Amino acid sequence: MLVKRFDENPIISPQDVQPSRDDFEVVGAFNAGAIQFKNEVLLLLRVAERPKQIPAATALAPIFNPTSGNIDYFTVPHGTNTLELLDSRVFRFKGDIYLTSISHLRLARSTDGIHFTIDSQPAVVPTTEFETYGIEDPRISLIDGQYWITYKPVSKYGICTSLLKTTDFMNYERFPIIFCPENIDVVLFPQKFNDRYYALTRPVVRNIGPLAIWIADSQDMIHWGNHRPLMLPRPGTFDGGRIGASCVPIKTDYGWLEIYHGADEYNKYCLAAVMLDLNDPSKIISRSTTPFMHPSAPYEVKGFFGNVVFSCGAIMDSNNLITIYYGAADTCMAGAVITLGEILDHLKITESATASSLA
Amino acid sequence: MLVKRFDENPIISPQDVQPSRDDFEVVGAFNAGAIQFKNEVLLLLRVAERPKQIPAATALAPIFNPTSGNIDYFTVPHGTNTLELLDSRVFRFKGDIYLTSISHLRLARSTDGIHFTIDSQPAVVPTTEFETYGIEDPRISLIDGQYWITYKPVSKYGICTSLLKTTDFMNYERFPIIFCPENIDVVLFPQKFNDRYYALTRPVVRNIGPLAIWIADSQDMIHWGNHRPLMLPRPGTFDGGRIGASCVPIKTDYGWLEIYHGADEYNKYCLAAVMLDLNDPSKIISRSTTPFMHPSAPYEVKGFFGNVVFSCGAIMDSNNLITIYYGAADTCMAGAVITLGEILDHLKITESATASSLA
Repeated sequence: MLVKRFDENPIISPQDVQPSRDDFEVVGAFNAGAIQFKNEVLLLLRVAERPKQIPAATALAPIFNPTSGNIDYFTVPHGTNTLELLDSRVFRFKGDIYLTSISHLRLARSTDGIHFTIDSQPAVVPTTEFETYGIEDPRISLIDGQYWITYKPVSKYGICTSLLKTTDFMNYERFPIIFCPENIDVVLFPQKFNDRYYALTRPVVRNIGPLAIWIADSQDMIHWGNHRPLMLPRPGTFDGGRIGASCVPIKTDYGWLEIYHGADEYNKYCLAAVMLDLNDPSKIISRSTTPFMHPSAPYEVKGFFGNVVFSCGAIMDSNNLITIYYGAADTCMAGAVITLGEILDHLKITESATASSLA
Repeated sequence: MLVKRFDENPIISPQDVQPSRDDFEVVGAFNAGAIQFKNEVLLLLRVAERPKQIPAATALAPIFNPTSGNIDYFTVPHGTNTLELLDSRVFRFKGDIYLTSISHLRLARSTDGIHFTIDSQPAVVPTTEFETYGIEDPRISLIDGQYWITYKPVSKYGICTSLLKTTDFMNYERFPIIFCPENIDVVLFPQKFNDRYYALTRPVVRNIGPLAIWIADSQDMIHWGNHRPLMLPRPGTFDGGRIGASCVPIKTDYGWLEIYHGADEYNKYCLAAVMLDLNDPSKIISRSTTPFMHPSAPYEVKGFFGNVVFSCGAIMDSNNLITIYYGAADTCMAGAVITLGEILDHLKITESATASSLA
């Protein structure tokens, strides 16, 4: 294992987070976007909640009602013919998938990057008809002085990717759906290339094709095209089942460092890296052949959905120390550090090389 | 049944089409885009081919090789452990789907709209790495004097939607992938609205959501966003399984007439209609409650994949007579006529009404 986990892990647990309602309990505080903002590290947590009281032997899905503004409970008694209890996160009823919790976004703040104070109120809550099952997995990119946040709105219409913009982490502007279902794990590059924004995406194909990372471009951040596959899963390896972008790409002298996640056929989620060309991020310079981090700590192995390390944000400081904030077991937040030099070694990139000479 | 089928049906059969190679046979000539061009009706056929000689007890997929420019044969002996013969169109091997035929696009021309002369050579053939399994289901929109053709490039990377442009149906300009996998049944509206192009799309979701028709907009025809669902399947009805746009929308005094396809849970594909607001095609004025056409003729019920009527293009003449060209049973092309008045009756739109008063 290359990374050094925080001694303080997990740094944020569900019990640290005040529920958004008295009758709710927090079951997950995980998959946070991370950014340095003024003199603080901000984590924009995905907070998953469910009612404290769930009727015995009942599957329950909390669903936001955009008409009333309330969260309704959709319940199905266990033993119902068309009910399938799939795992802790989801059940299927009459062929449709429902989520057992509903997520919102919540800020946590820290001056040392380790000890966080969690806001008592949500930052962003489900609002539209496309967010009735919750909003999930924010990634924050600083582009030209504004913070653009991709996230997954989930509803009966599907799992999409949408967009928020903020300058102050107090007021958030909402944008339309930028990637129609199913498309997840979208990260925006923190700069334009030839007057185009770039994004990594993870189309969730149904019939043909691998669960791969694609790249697309845009002139306005809303309309995306020129889609093409960037990286494929490698069957038989740690990332043979599915891959997706995790952290917002980090600019280095050697290229864009993308920390991505790969899962094997048993849904064990690891973290790995790929270095992309500085001027053309559709070009791969080097990719991990092994994960640099896999679930092994107790809080990573067991939880709401175990055997998962899943990051939505990392921060590199001026000493090239990278702090990876990651969701563990779909339950809590943890942190780990790795140096850029260690990542370069792992990617077999010599520190004297430059991206352009390698490309 | 409201439509009147051509007496001459099927108007184009596989045996009418010259294979693109001597060692190939044509197994399907279907799902053609249709357009009036100069004094002719043009059908841009999807022509599906496979080798004449297939080794006994073997699953074979013809796959275009973009490096050599040849079509290679991928074969798996029947009885192989990880081989599943799914239906006539596809097999699965080691979890991946393969197609038993490979499609290109071919022009057929007619002065009366019924009797067609089929070009001896393809119009557009698989060329890129995203087209190795074929190119399928073209839809032709005339926009500002140019013909824009959406089609499905299929490869191991997935089933996408891409774009061709032509002014003469001799030279075709190819564009990048405009909708990443899986997204099919894309039709472009033949005009701009508030300086935006509009498209109907059919995201093929994997985990959550119905197989529904979505709408998106674009400023340049390449980059698409502002995705939102337009119409959902209606469980228990003829279109309860899946719906998708079929023909390019037809402008009428009453709104945009979209002839769409709906399939039930048994994969019986019917044709139905929806009228969309003239100024805002994301508004539905009226939608079929029953199909106006379902597979019943022998050539629709039996074929490569039976019980399918599937249109990619219809033409309305100056007398408001609509000729629907459609693929029957994934095998041949047929035609049927219906008047706009009959469609309006079917949609319970009174002829004296205007779209704006109904919207």
